[in-house]
Amino acid sequence: MNLKAPNPVLQALGRPLRLGVVGGGGASFIGPIHRAAAVLDGRFQVVAGVPSSHTDKGRAQGAAIGLDPSRTYASMAEMVAAEATRPAGDGIEAVAIMTPNDLHYDQCVMALQAGLHVVCDKPMVNDSAQARALADLVRSTGLAFCLTHNYSGYPMVRQARAMVEAGVLGALRIVQVDYFQSGMALPVEQGTLTDRQRWKLDAQRSGPSLVLGDIGTHAHQLACFVTNGQVTQVSADVGAVVPGRVVDDYAAILWRFDHGARGACVVTQAAAGAENNLTLRVYGEKGMLEWQHAAPNYLRHAPQGAPVQVLGRGDPWLDARALGCIRVSRGHPEGFTEAFANLYAEFAEAILASRAGTPLAAPWFPTVEDGLHGIRFVEAAVQSSRQSGAWAPCTG
Amino acid sequence: MNLKAPNPVLQALGRPLRLGVVGGGGASFIGPIHRAAAVLDGRFQVVAGVPSSHTDKGRAQGAAIGLDPSRTYASMAEMVAAEATRPAGDGIEAVAIMTPNDLHYDQCVMALQAGLHVVCDKPMVNDSAQARALADLVRSTGLAFCLTHNYSGYPMVRQARAMVEAGVLGALRIVQVDYFQSGMALPVEQGTLTDRQRWKLDAQRSGPSLVLGDIGTHAHQLACFVTNGQVTQVSADVGAVVPGRVVDDYAAILWRFDHGARGACVVTQAAAGAENNLTLRVYGEKGMLEWQHAAPNYLRHAPQGAPVQVLGRGDPWLDARALGCIRVSRGHPEGFTEAFANLYAEFAEAILASRAGTPLAAPWFPTVEDGLHGIRFVEAAVQSSRQSGAWAPCTG
Amino acid sequence: MNLKAPNPVLQALGRPLRLGVVGGGGASFIGPIHRAAAVLDGRFQVVAGVPSSHTDKGRAQGAAIGLDPSRTYASMAEMVAAEATRPAGDGIEAVAIMTPNDLHYDQCVMALQAGLHVVCDKPMVNDSAQARALADLVRSTGLAFCLTHNYSGYPMVRQARAMVEAGVLGALRIVQVDYFQSGMALPVEQGTLTDRQRWKLDAQRSGPSLVLGDIGTHAHQLACFVTNGQVTQVSADVGAVVPGRVVDDYAAILWRFDHGARGACVVTQAAAGAENNLTLRVYGEKGMLEWQHAAPNYLRHAPQGAPVQVLGRGDPWLDARALGCIRVSRGHPEGFTEAFANLYAEFAEAILASRAGTPLAAPWFPTVEDGLHGIRFVEAAVQSSRQSGAWAPCTG
Amino acid sequence: MNLKAPNPVLQALGRPLRLGVVGGGGASFIGPIHRAAAVLDGRFQVVAGVPSSHTDKGRAQGAAIGLDPSRTYASMAEMVAAEATRPAGDGIEAVAIMTPNDLHYDQCVMALQAGLHVVCDKPMVNDSAQARALADLVRSTGLAFCLTHNYSGYPMVRQARAMVEAGVLGALRIVQVDYFQSGMALPVEQGTLTDRQRWKLDAQRSGPSLVLGDIGTHAHQLACFVTNGQVTQVSADVGAVVPGRVVDDYAAILWRFDHGARGACVVTQAAAGAENNLTLRVYGEKGMLEWQHAAPNYLRHAPQGAPVQVLGRGDPWLDARALGCIRVSRGHPEGFTEAFANLYAEFAEAILASRAGTPLAAPWFPTVEDGLHGIRFVEAAVQSSRQSGAWAPCTG
Repeated sequence: MNLKAPNPVLQALGRPLRLGVVGGGGASFIGPIHRAAAVLDGRFQVVAGVPSSHTDKGRAQGAAIGLDPSRTYASMAEMVAAEATRPAGDGIEAVAIMTPNDLHYDQCVMALQAGLHVVCDKPMVNDSAQARALADLVRSTGLAFCLTHNYSGYPMVRQARAMVEAGVLGALRIVQVDYFQSGMALPVEQGTLTDRQRWKLDAQRSGPSLVLGDIGTHAHQLACFVTNGQVTQVSADVGAVVPGRVVDDYAAILWRFDHGARGACVVTQAAAGAENNLTLRVYGEKGMLEWQHAAPNYLRHAPQGAPVQVLGRGDPWLDARALGCIRVSRGHPEGFTEAFANLYAEFAEAILASRAGTPLAAPWFPTVEDGLHGIRFVEAAVQSSRQSGAWAPCTG
Repeated sequence: MNLKAPNPVLQALGRPLRLGVVGGGGASFIGPIHRAAAVLDGRFQVVAGVPSSHTDKGRAQGAAIGLDPSRTYASMAEMVAAEATRPAGDGIEAVAIMTPNDLHYDQCVMALQAGLHVVCDKPMVNDSAQARALADLVRSTGLAFCLTHNYSGYPMVRQARAMVEAGVLGALRIVQVDYFQSGMALPVEQGTLTDRQRWKLDAQRSGPSLVLGDIGTHAHQLACFVTNGQVTQVSADVGAVVPGRVVDDYAAILWRFDHGARGACVVTQAAAGAENNLTLRVYGEKGMLEWQHAAPNYLRHAPQGAPVQVLGRGDPWLDARALGCIRVSRGHPEGFTEAFANLYAEFAEAILASRAGTPLAAPWFPTVEDGLHGIRFVEAAVQSSRQSGAWAPCTG
Repeated sequence: MNLKAPNPVLQALGRPLRLGVVGGGGASFIGPIHRAAAVLDGRFQVVAGVPSSHTDKGRAQGAAIGLDPSRTYASMAEMVAAEATRPAGDGIEAVAIMTPNDLHYDQCVMALQAGLHVVCDKPMVNDSAQARALADLVRSTGLAFCLTHNYSGYPMVRQARAMVEAGVLGALRIVQVDYFQSGMALPVEQGTLTDRQRWKLDAQRSGPSLVLGDIGTHAHQLACFVTNGQVTQVSADVGAVVPGRVVDDYAAILWRFDHGARGACVVTQAAAGAENNLTLRVYGEKGMLEWQHAAPNYLRHAPQGAPVQVLGRGDPWLDARALGCIRVSRGHPEGFTEAFANLYAEFAEAILASRAGTPLAAPWFPTVEDGLHGIRFVEAAVQSSRQSGAWAPCTG
Repeated sequence: MNLKAPNPVLQALGRPLRLGVVGGGGASFIGPIHRAAAVLDGRFQVVAGVPSSHTDKGRAQGAAIGLDPSRTYASMAEMVAAEATRPAGDGIEAVAIMTPNDLHYDQCVMALQAGLHVVCDKPMVNDSAQARALADLVRSTGLAFCLTHNYSGYPMVRQARAMVEAGVLGALRIVQVDYFQSGMALPVEQGTLTDRQRWKLDAQRSGPSLVLGDIGTHAHQLACFVTNGQVTQVSADVGAVVPGRVVDDYAAILWRFDHGARGACVVTQAAAGAENNLTLRVYGEKGMLEWQHAAPNYLRHAPQGAPVQVLGRGDPWLDARALGCIRVSRGHPEGFTEAFANLYAEFAEAILASRAGTPLAAPWFPTVEDGLHGIRFVEAAVQSSRQSGAWAPCTG
């Protein structure tokens, strides 16, 4: 992918791809990000949507985001059916799913079966059986599927991956990820819940472990992406640090990777005082890399036996795969939305490839297989924690 | 302005404002930023443009950014004339000018005389006579005019302004701005010049002082915006630090403000090793504020006699005028494009106000008067430097 | 302790306390630090020593550090015996032990039995049976005993402890310590070993787990000191990340504290590219504290619901116990030696108290009990790691 | 100088040099630092002193710092006379002067005429005539003279100097120094003054410009030391930013160097909220170096066209002249006292050289000539400010 090159969608199709959105209306946090990310590079336009499952509310929310009333739907099923009847070259070609976790599976299946490409918010689904089924379906359809673990879209994260691949660190030894948030630091259960809080606090909807699904899968995918590896087993302590809480808000995990590294991963949504503090450190035999989300435009590289380097987004000596996903030149900060948009930009290329019958072999956006690995990681951590920290496998 | 509130343009007009762009095609740095900033919040759509003054090149560049060939023009005059003949509610309502500095004046005048609102890149014009004439024209037309000194669009810069206004620092004492870039650190004159370098290095086109026009006016506007004041006089050393250079690449300026503060401002484009390092520090009787462009989501506040605070973009205790221009919640970085987009978002509100006959009284985006102050600052600095640093007035 | 107050040793005794040093000669890392720390505040003078167990070498090393040849000894036993025969008020009153780990126990016992106060380098001893015996001996003699876990001597670490004690964080939830060094990142075993490397790599001498003894005990003591608590159980992964290594160079530990907090602690000496990177983060219900050894003069406090604060060493609003161990005013950095000296300064006060028959009740320097907790922590981590991560108790 | 090598004083003389101190008793800020710095490396011992000019007070202050009552004097003259009568090898060999500025000249002259080596606090004297006379006297006596501009003692500052000398930056272009303190941010004149404040606020005692003498000379010496050059002319704005103040608390200076660089230097003691914020940035044709006193163990090197490097104190790839003044290994912070001690350590070597009749040719500690340049800089800045910023020469 090279964002400085001519827009391949405009070149191939003469206009942006047509996207339908499911969820993300009203006060949604992630909805505006998906929509901004989709359109930022002129590769998608949002032409239809299901902003809310409540009809009247959905209509108002659709108008608020500029949707045509005639293409604002009350359900995924309605959208899929109605869009399929539009004239050739007018109906949606892809859907973006940003609904509560327990709805993802059915909606993904519905979209894929209708021949639509899918971008799905994380966590992909709530158990590994669904994940395997979904992976099979994606493979069999040949459609493009992107899971929005957006942290891997940051240019300096991609630079880290490229450096690891190039052997800059040598054999990997230790991988550390900390992800500390404060959204659940207060006992929110004791107050009036927002819609979002209500389904998050309902384990039937949010999945086997709230904190692991919400941010543990981000931490896991980030570590796997950068080190180009898989976690094979974990020893974990999972639970709640806020008294009286019945969902998980804390997980500390010791992990081992197929590339031989080990390390620790700590995630919590109950870290009073935290912002959205995600830190990755990778150590190999020749040095280390550190990336912090609070300063995403920089990557620290400390080689053994040579001066520490601070690499900046846009530096001309970066790897082409990092430079390819940069919009604004060095010294001009980019942020969360641009990282998210990088997933969409490459997803657009995957759609073109799928249309051409030559699916992308190894895209850098998170795939359905990454989603499967993520849910297996969650399940293994929960299992280990229940068994006094005994190492549990998370592959297979 | 409150970006979390419903889109006022959609509410008032049912669809985005129609924008024509002048310049910014091809390999332009600022063109993609203007276009992304314009559309980011769904308040503008880019429907016409003059990507290049060369017809064939312009046509190709227009296609590359998704312009309809029928609305890709060869000149500003052609665009203004043709768009005026389109059906009601279809022609452009505003233009965004991002051409070489010496073209700004004529293009702004042409647009305003055609009843179009204008967003213009900096520096506004190349001498104060033109600036005064343009300010008069804007006032007489009642049209909206926005100058893209985008650094004042960063939420944490706006927080600084709000805190100064609220008296958090007490009486102001010292204002420091450093702006160090490396784009001219090498003797680029000795190699093959890009189009952009060619006009920059031609003082007839780039104005009385290259570095002062390019980034000195940014530094000046940032200091004036945050401290809500004007520079009244300067003592300066302006010139070139790269041997053999005939345009200015360095300016060190001692300044005095109408609010009583003084300080120093150093700007250079010949700082080998620099990125785009802009730093603002404001000291008052009660404490200081520091903002650095390399970490734009934070603002350091060091009160006298109490602990240092680090304020973060999105913190709920920020001023409403800072919170109003935030898209992504705290801990999720925003960057250059979003800051730029904040100017466009408020510019859209200014257009609505102009249409309603009630122009915005004191917008926070930079105005034509700010452009006038900027060019007066440049002229005074050049004058002082020629007179052995003697203090020169820059108001009036 | 208040270093700004008159020197209590000079006030009580009219001259500094007389110290004998054991080890630390030649190219020792820790020797010069002990000696500088001892004399920095005029509370000790180094009057005798056993720089090396090899007589000729020891004599030369003694001269190099200014020892009188007549008081440069070949062994601890010789020094204790000879010094005891000196005129009243002339022989050593305390010893500082900085020899290989396996010698600590015998040397401590010898000193205590001779009525000498003891400052001992960490880890205190190599197994918990010795640790218990030593703790009993210290208690029975009433002599002062200080273990040099020097990180707890930093003023901002003490400020953190004071804030935790004062309830600034509320109930504690999570305690994180990372300690990453690079001293063993290369396969040093394959080259020529220094004396220091030779005994470190000999598990008979360095103890049950090299990395845990060397720096794990530092991490443990730091966490316990700041949170005023004890680790009750651990689940651990301990081993070597450098291929072929037979001693431990890596340990990742999940821990639980008696105050209810849990968290993770990762220590390694094989982190290629690291300096001496020790980081502590403590989260409670009301906010968090972060201290990093690379910037030891600052403490970050992020309260939930209020702006982040950066506290600086010397700020007048610090706790008296932090301000009491500061020599140079705010904004003038202090470092490792001063932190080390703070242990010595309070150790001197403990000696005065012991001489007066009123031993200090709860000194802030690390005690023999802290040493016992440290070795129990090491033993439990090793045990858990051997049992597939099963939680192991480390109290009792 | 190499602090890891055997102590040259012990090698040459068998014991430390004997130092007398003048001033620095009681609540003095700088007194304890001078004394700790003198003894830190075992090259000096403080054996006599004039802690205060008031006899009783001086006696008590002498006891408090461990001086023998028989060698605690009431005046410099008394000390010089009495010490001269002591047995050979017993009297003081050097004096350290840390009295109010207006006393330095007479005390330096008295010491030098008595054959004593001198370490003197800054600013050296209050006018350039005295400075020239003192420089002549030092030269004629061949005695060692050290001026304690201690910032040039930091290892990473010395590394910067070494890199500039080695041509790492190429031809120098811009030198920036900011020095912001808050000690005079409040209108202290309106309250009860301490002794120190009283003489500082008396221009007869503190010299032609308080802020320039106090910290401007530090900024000037730091810039000259690192760039191995002299300031040739200045254009300045000097005055008070605190209303009603009659001494200077603010100076902004544009400067030009004999090596061709220019830049700005801003110093103030009235920066509310500041600590002791000294920052140096040097730009050359090939890149830049930045050093900040708040993080003194690191030096940022940004080469043009290659990644930013962060050099750490103790890194083995540093210049020998930086590594030579390090006590504690990399990753173990050093601070203000150690930097100060580096001046004393080399001053001791200068004394040995003077005794041997071969004075050091180009010591890295600040010399009497540096003191002369400093006062000429102050005088020129004051002159320029009085002449509307006209450039004033400060050499000759």
